Amino acid sequence: MQTYSAPLRDMRFALHELFDSNKTIELPGYEAFSPDLFDTILEEAAKFFTDTLLPINLSGDIEGCHYENGVVRTPKGFKEAYDAFCAGGWHGLSSDPAYGGQGLPMTVGKLVEEMICACNLSFGMYPGLTHGASIALKSFGSEALKDLYLPHFTDGSWSGTMCLTEPHCGTDLGLMRTKAVPQDDGTFLVTGNKIFISAGEHDLTENIIHLVLARLPDAPPGIKGISLFLVPKFIPDANGRPGTRNGVSCSGIEHKLGIKASATCQINLDEATGWIVGEPHKGMRSMFAMMNEARLGVAIQGLGVGEAAYQGAVAYAKERLQGRSLSGPKYPEKPADPIIVHPDVRRMLLTMRAYNEGCRALGTWVASIQDEVLRSIDPKVREAAEDFVAMMTPIMKAMFTDFGFESANLAVQIYGGHGYIREHGMEQYVRDARIAQIYEGTNGIQALDLVGRKLPANMGRSLRRFFHPVQEFIDANKDDAQIGEMVQGYAKAFGALQLATGHIAQKGMADPEEAGAAATEYLRLFGLVALGFMWLRATKVSLAALAAGSQETAFYEGKIATARFFFDRLLPQTGSLWFSIKSGKASMMALPADVF
Amino acid sequence: MQTYSAPLRDMRFALHELFDSNKTIELPGYEAFSPDLFDTILEEAAKFFTDTLLPINLSGDIEGCHYENGVVRTPKGFKEAYDAFCAGGWHGLSSDPAYGGQGLPMTVGKLVEEMICACNLSFGMYPGLTHGASIALKSFGSEALKDLYLPHFTDGSWSGTMCLTEPHCGTDLGLMRTKAVPQDDGTFLVTGNKIFISAGEHDLTENIIHLVLARLPDAPPGIKGISLFLVPKFIPDANGRPGTRNGVSCSGIEHKLGIKASATCQINLDEATGWIVGEPHKGMRSMFAMMNEARLGVAIQGLGVGEAAYQGAVAYAKERLQGRSLSGPKYPEKPADPIIVHPDVRRMLLTMRAYNEGCRALGTWVASIQDEVLRSIDPKVREAAEDFVAMMTPIMKAMFTDFGFESANLAVQIYGGHGYIREHGMEQYVRDARIAQIYEGTNGIQALDLVGRKLPANMGRSLRRFFHPVQEFIDANKDDAQIGEMVQGYAKAFGALQLATGHIAQKGMADPEEAGAAATEYLRLFGLVALGFMWLRATKVSLAALAAGSQETAFYEGKIATARFFFDRLLPQTGSLWFSIKSGKASMMALPADVF
Repeated sequence: MQTYSAPLRDMRFALHELFDSNKTIELPGYEAFSPDLFDTILEEAAKFFTDTLLPINLSGDIEGCHYENGVVRTPKGFKEAYDAFCAGGWHGLSSDPAYGGQGLPMTVGKLVEEMICACNLSFGMYPGLTHGASIALKSFGSEALKDLYLPHFTDGSWSGTMCLTEPHCGTDLGLMRTKAVPQDDGTFLVTGNKIFISAGEHDLTENIIHLVLARLPDAPPGIKGISLFLVPKFIPDANGRPGTRNGVSCSGIEHKLGIKASATCQINLDEATGWIVGEPHKGMRSMFAMMNEARLGVAIQGLGVGEAAYQGAVAYAKERLQGRSLSGPKYPEKPADPIIVHPDVRRMLLTMRAYNEGCRALGTWVASIQDEVLRSIDPKVREAAEDFVAMMTPIMKAMFTDFGFESANLAVQIYGGHGYIREHGMEQYVRDARIAQIYEGTNGIQALDLVGRKLPANMGRSLRRFFHPVQEFIDANKDDAQIGEMVQGYAKAFGALQLATGHIAQKGMADPEEAGAAATEYLRLFGLVALGFMWLRATKVSLAALAAGSQETAFYEGKIATARFFFDRLLPQTGSLWFSIKSGKASMMALPADVF
Repeated sequence: MQTYSAPLRDMRFALHELFDSNKTIELPGYEAFSPDLFDTILEEAAKFFTDTLLPINLSGDIEGCHYENGVVRTPKGFKEAYDAFCAGGWHGLSSDPAYGGQGLPMTVGKLVEEMICACNLSFGMYPGLTHGASIALKSFGSEALKDLYLPHFTDGSWSGTMCLTEPHCGTDLGLMRTKAVPQDDGTFLVTGNKIFISAGEHDLTENIIHLVLARLPDAPPGIKGISLFLVPKFIPDANGRPGTRNGVSCSGIEHKLGIKASATCQINLDEATGWIVGEPHKGMRSMFAMMNEARLGVAIQGLGVGEAAYQGAVAYAKERLQGRSLSGPKYPEKPADPIIVHPDVRRMLLTMRAYNEGCRALGTWVASIQDEVLRSIDPKVREAAEDFVAMMTPIMKAMFTDFGFESANLAVQIYGGHGYIREHGMEQYVRDARIAQIYEGTNGIQALDLVGRKLPANMGRSLRRFFHPVQEFIDANKDDAQIGEMVQGYAKAFGALQLATGHIAQKGMADPEEAGAAATEYLRLFGLVALGFMWLRATKVSLAALAAGSQETAFYEGKIATARFFFDRLLPQTGSLWFSIKSGKASMMALPADVF
């Protein structure tokens, strides 16, 4: 069954105990918030999303979106839910107050996003895309464009898209063909065919604003000749209301594996009127403003689905009676024991739990640093924060989405045959989660971004933003009576990461293919070490809470037990990863292409 | 695109070079075959299946099966393909000549099965189920039942099912409620509800013969009180033709993640007339005769889909132009290089290749030993062969299907967004492959079967059937000038398997939960070591062929390069697995169930 109850206790743990929400509210612009207010918002969000978005998740998947004559109809209940979502103020929760938003810190905003994704990933695509578009517009748009469009993005009355992909051009945007021809009035006529445009056409909003990558006539070839344009479906009239229909249309939607309630559109631009966003030929910069934000959003999608899958699996594991415990019947009065008594079922549940809680902690850490990027007045703090977020973005995107997909599959496995059929909703999680490993840059591209851009950036400065706090923690705790042994085990994995980093820096300098060959394993190694750091901190905090006499013994002991599982069963993969990395590119590149 | 060309060269490699097909045809009953004839059969099979089954794979998935008023309609083209399949003699290829079959050795039969699964997994379910039913009937049925039903199973005019699962009872068959009441004429009236019955109702054959597990009135509780019954849809008349409609009906089909062209039925038995197969209360024994065969068949499903996914991915990786090689443009005249130049794409392709070719080799080895089980006149040889096949069955079932699913997902990943949509057919492989990890005993159950039954059986005798040849190979080749280094690396993984085996034997004896906690990782460790043995042998054979002046340098060098990739990138996982195994059950069992 699709069942979900927002993990509010664990969210508060991440927000207030693992990290310090009081530090967040010291940042300029966040003074009006308080830890208590954060908790209230999370509770309200949990209630609203589980009431409105969860009930239309499975039905939306079964019904899907429908296309006819250029019009896309979202599934039953989506329009009503979207209207309620906007009316409740959830759309502009983290948006800039200057344009009508509530300016909630990222730290809390990401936890709210997680709930949306857990309840209904397809639904979350619509506000999510608008959010990405608003970031690009806010960063690079003219004041006139911002004043006209951003308030509509904030309240959700207009939605946004990102029009990048063309049939022959996905990862390699330099191959793009869509053209923009300047007009005398300062606008542009944009012509081309875009595919895979999420929320490209739908019936939720009165206007749809496309952010379109295209080439100017004088553009240099490749990605240095790409500019960004704003192309509204309806051109706003003098009163700022949707006016004339623009030359942009939807010629079809894709039949996809999952997120079927999210319309994935083919968009034709036929001399559509557009306005440039940012400077000519600098479109990739604006695009990356959207993209980096979108990648962190996709990471949270992985976590959201992973959590929903975990909860569905736990419910079934406690309820499904099948077989007896290997250590003797646990419920002799019942015809069989619930399957949660079986070690292998627990292995699956604990794997999901360790992923989800670890990723929630890491996501909260990164979001708290994003808040410094956005709000700190100290340029040194901002620089350090930007370094850290830039480096963690590909790691989070790839690892969270890999784990989300794995968790969805583990949930199906726990349900057995009942997971493979539609009615319990577990197979939907598998199909929905799968896209997150692909879009906004495949996970292989994330790994290349990490080793090719983020590691070498500023002579490894970004790396130190992670390595230093970890090393400090190890030094401070390696002889601790309670967690010293755990820390020492962890230090070996951290050592493997350091060795692998050195290996890639050295070999990759001389031969970029060496870095490319190591990339995916390195990203996973880095990600596991980052999660391990979260689990060490969680253990330390939990032990302290218990020592201080907390009555929440089940919660804190659960943390500690899950941490042990992580260190026993998941972190050891780092050893094999380092072994694979150091084998180098030879066995990967030796085979001539025609032998495949 | 779904493209498939049977890997005939690699099949011949496994059949004749890695193992010895001449040894197979020395077995009694196989004298009429020859290695050349095997090759001819494989070629004909490849042609027939790619011509008839592949073209209706994607269309069958899109259309699915339809249920109305108790009748199930298979997708367009399935009936015609099935008729051609039977008319061509493919249905009885490996069946017993005593009942009209062609008695092909398992060694070749499994390679033929792989092709069927690669072309159309859903289609393969229909003859596959019949094959399983015929094995149970042949082993335990009365002469009268065998004479009446087996010829129809062989020619495919009647199909078979396995009716095990009930809504509340899957893995734990002891909970079964379906009842069978003896009648004066020696028949039984069978009443109950079965679910998840593959091929339970369809329009391909004139009769459907259900093999149904049920309880007799005097049955002891649990799995020791289960008997097996044959329940035909139409009761054969005096002429052996389908006569009166029996009290068995289909009340619906499941909406599933995949294998949509395979009808998964809810079957109601309402005082249906049945005939007992085997002794009363000994139904589990008969069921396991079907089940073990079915598990090996499911393993081959994993391999078949994995190979199809690999071929689809290779085609796209060679054709899709995107980005430039990290070592400089490889096709400067084109707008971009094909993505096969990228290390991470190669990592994915080589992973699939190493899985597929390794599993094909291992499957051929096990099939050649199955032939000894079936045909050897030496009881000692048969005993050793039975031990080996029994032990390898859960390993193959779980590992091949895990790898098949992983390969399907890697193919989607290589296609990127184009893999997530329906038209190229890659996402179908993901959906289809997923069931193989679940049915015929989930992969977790396979792991328990390995550590709980197969390892301790006959005081570890089964284990020696694998350990001894591996140790011999290591001893004979560890100082070899060409492969010595590879063998020494492998010996470490083999050592980890030996240590893990000792650990489980020792700890599991005192506490079965310790064995249960180690089971999944142990199965994977064992499987990787078994694949490593195949890759060592493949390397040795390939080096010898090249040294002997073979002109097929691309083929043999491809083998050696893929082996190197396996040892560099995949086998190292064994280190982490052993590390996890030895951590024991503590962190898995500590958390109280209500904290989940």
